[in-house]
Amino acid sequence: MTIIEIIEKKKNKQPLTKEEIDFWITGMISGEVKDYQVSSLLMAIVLNGMNQEETFYLTDAMLHSGEQVDLSEISGIKVDKHSTGGVGDKVTLILAPLLASFGLKVAKMSGRGLGHTGGTIDKLESIPGYRVELTREEFMKQVQDVGVAVISQSGNLVPADKKLYALRDVTGTVDSIPLIASSIMSKKIASGSDYIFIDVKVGNGALMKDLESARALARTMTEIGKRYQKKTVCILTNMSEPLGYAIGNALEVEEAIQSLKGMGPEDVMELIIKIASFIISDTENISEEEATQQCFKKLNTGVAYQKLEEMVHAQGGDLTKLEVSNRIFSVRSPKAGYLTKINALGLGEIARQIGAGRLTKEDKIHYQVGLVLRHKVGDFVAVNDELMRVYLDDKDVKVNDILDCFTITEHPVEKEPLIYEIID
Amino acid sequence: MTIIEIIEKKKNKQPLTKEEIDFWITGMISGEVKDYQVSSLLMAIVLNGMNQEETFYLTDAMLHSGEQVDLSEISGIKVDKHSTGGVGDKVTLILAPLLASFGLKVAKMSGRGLGHTGGTIDKLESIPGYRVELTREEFMKQVQDVGVAVISQSGNLVPADKKLYALRDVTGTVDSIPLIASSIMSKKIASGSDYIFIDVKVGNGALMKDLESARALARTMTEIGKRYQKKTVCILTNMSEPLGYAIGNALEVEEAIQSLKGMGPEDVMELIIKIASFIISDTENISEEEATQQCFKKLNTGVAYQKLEEMVHAQGGDLTKLEVSNRIFSVRSPKAGYLTKINALGLGEIARQIGAGRLTKEDKIHYQVGLVLRHKVGDFVAVNDELMRVYLDDKDVKVNDILDCFTITEHPVEKEPLIYEIID
Repeated sequence: MTIIEIIEKKKNKQPLTKEEIDFWITGMISGEVKDYQVSSLLMAIVLNGMNQEETFYLTDAMLHSGEQVDLSEISGIKVDKHSTGGVGDKVTLILAPLLASFGLKVAKMSGRGLGHTGGTIDKLESIPGYRVELTREEFMKQVQDVGVAVISQSGNLVPADKKLYALRDVTGTVDSIPLIASSIMSKKIASGSDYIFIDVKVGNGALMKDLESARALARTMTEIGKRYQKKTVCILTNMSEPLGYAIGNALEVEEAIQSLKGMGPEDVMELIIKIASFIISDTENISEEEATQQCFKKLNTGVAYQKLEEMVHAQGGDLTKLEVSNRIFSVRSPKAGYLTKINALGLGEIARQIGAGRLTKEDKIHYQVGLVLRHKVGDFVAVNDELMRVYLDDKDVKVNDILDCFTITEHPVEKEPLIYEIID
Repeated sequence: MTIIEIIEKKKNKQPLTKEEIDFWITGMISGEVKDYQVSSLLMAIVLNGMNQEETFYLTDAMLHSGEQVDLSEISGIKVDKHSTGGVGDKVTLILAPLLASFGLKVAKMSGRGLGHTGGTIDKLESIPGYRVELTREEFMKQVQDVGVAVISQSGNLVPADKKLYALRDVTGTVDSIPLIASSIMSKKIASGSDYIFIDVKVGNGALMKDLESARALARTMTEIGKRYQKKTVCILTNMSEPLGYAIGNALEVEEAIQSLKGMGPEDVMELIIKIASFIISDTENISEEEATQQCFKKLNTGVAYQKLEEMVHAQGGDLTKLEVSNRIFSVRSPKAGYLTKINALGLGEIARQIGAGRLTKEDKIHYQVGLVLRHKVGDFVAVNDELMRVYLDDKDVKVNDILDCFTITEHPVEKEPLIYEIID
């Protein structure tokens, strides 16, 4: 067996065997299979696909490339949540404490990744003192005692995915359902939770451009979950405008705090309640209506927020010291009309330009910078109304680039739904 | 412009612009575009193709990646000949002197390449004393005075192709008409001849598996030739059995000598006469029948062979010192019947195993080893008849592997034609 034969097979649209996929992944880790061979194979997979069996073999090969976390000594149901990535997506920061406040255990390991804003880990690092790296013992103890811990993903967890992901990022081979599904699921399964909930973002600014491919990704992931006896649920949500108002690390933590107190933006609250009540109804065997009521109670009574405080405190952080930039300018509407579109991808790019995200691993994030929308799609705005506030540090941005992200029309358009469906 | 955008474009089946292709090739040479990005793009090209414009841009970008040879100071029509590669293909060794004996100028630069047997250069190196490297002045003078010189291709001739070819070889991205066409044509145009004749081999053992794709490759190459005002002619020939009897470097030179004296194997003679008479008829503006007569005369009177001797002598070689191995064994037929198939690829692989060719650039060729067929497809063989002689050095081979390459049946089959068509 040679890697060239494996590449040729996939090029000729033939399915790969378990042995061939193992050969590729172990060869890649050992260095015998070269990067240029992996990237050629990746492009063949992007263009010719992989069937369910191959996708499962790939997930399994990646899973076994490194350590797996054993959470069995922690009592209760261990829940993990993942998002395929959206602009302004601070859901994990809210959902993790909310679920923990119900007694579920959230043992979350999160990557930094490259993106318009930082990953969950970067957002948490904007809280002064917060330690994203705990020892295994500290992590297990915190999940057991507090019910929730969010830490940086260990380098030994699915090293094959780390390598593949880095390569896909620079070789135009990101958009493949089998590659995305196996990347996400290998990490989720290696992380050891029992219950995996994945938010699949759909839309122009998201990895999945349309509902059809989002559904296919969701089905692939739930199938993989079943193979490992892990309950896996996907929610398909709209990513055509940013989620909530805030984009940027400390700004998103602020919005998460507001949301945990029950006072977050409408769309953020809708999504949080939907996900949390689904999981609670499922794990506690109560109706979704009942679960929804209980979620509101946890939020409105401050119990959910308290759980965030507990977690942050346990990891050395101090929420009272959270700061955002004080170099603020307002972008105002040049005309009156209805906001019919807010370009999430465009604003994400601008957030990255001013320092909220990274383009390369080496870039340093400015935690205090970012954008805060003042209006959402569907709102009527008058001339000179504030559309957005920009929180700057040393990097500048062009106002016209920002205005280009807003479409204002004479007549209102029907707003698209935020939540499409749940697949489990 | 980034290489990732270029890869994404090709992945999405969009044609690339001249600027994009130049960006790729110059970036590859400078090292800014990484091997793993090139191989991902190559696989996208293999699977999604390139149109005629893109293929032309790629040829042009490769052509301009290095030096170009200027043959204008040599008087007369400069002819170049190329083969896409076949087992037992010694045509260049015969054709070059034959054409030179007509007064045409053959200024041939040839690569070593990887293959079942060596390239033309390796075959010539089996002649003791033969220098494959001449200075530019020596080369020009020899072509002017003798009419023919065959030397090793300079490292500065189309360095982009050298790099691309090496990468394609190890990433499963060899079989693409635009990549093959631009690779061949950039080298041919850089070599400076006026008249380019290409033998496109077709069949199981060849790069082009069927006539349809061979035709497409031929048409692509003649189109590229036109863009540079170079007369480009392709002949499509059958590569289902080895060409002639001999496979291996010194053995093929021996067969070439016999052929130049008019006593070569039937198929070799047929092909040589067809190509030479086409070129002579075309360049001397006489009928093909007339040209054919003249070719036979050059061969039968020894004039053509004399030209080979002159060339070899001018480059320091001595044909009288040519040697083949004396460790010979015969493979005999296990049954009586008609030879209906001789697996060219299989025998090529065996020739390589015993040292006639290279698997990696570092492998050393054994010039004296090889195979000599005693029968061709269509022949009747009795039990124990000699099928082939094997000339060995220190590397051994399994007799059963050899026998597997011969198919002997009770009834004869109609022999496929050697020459399919000429495209110009």
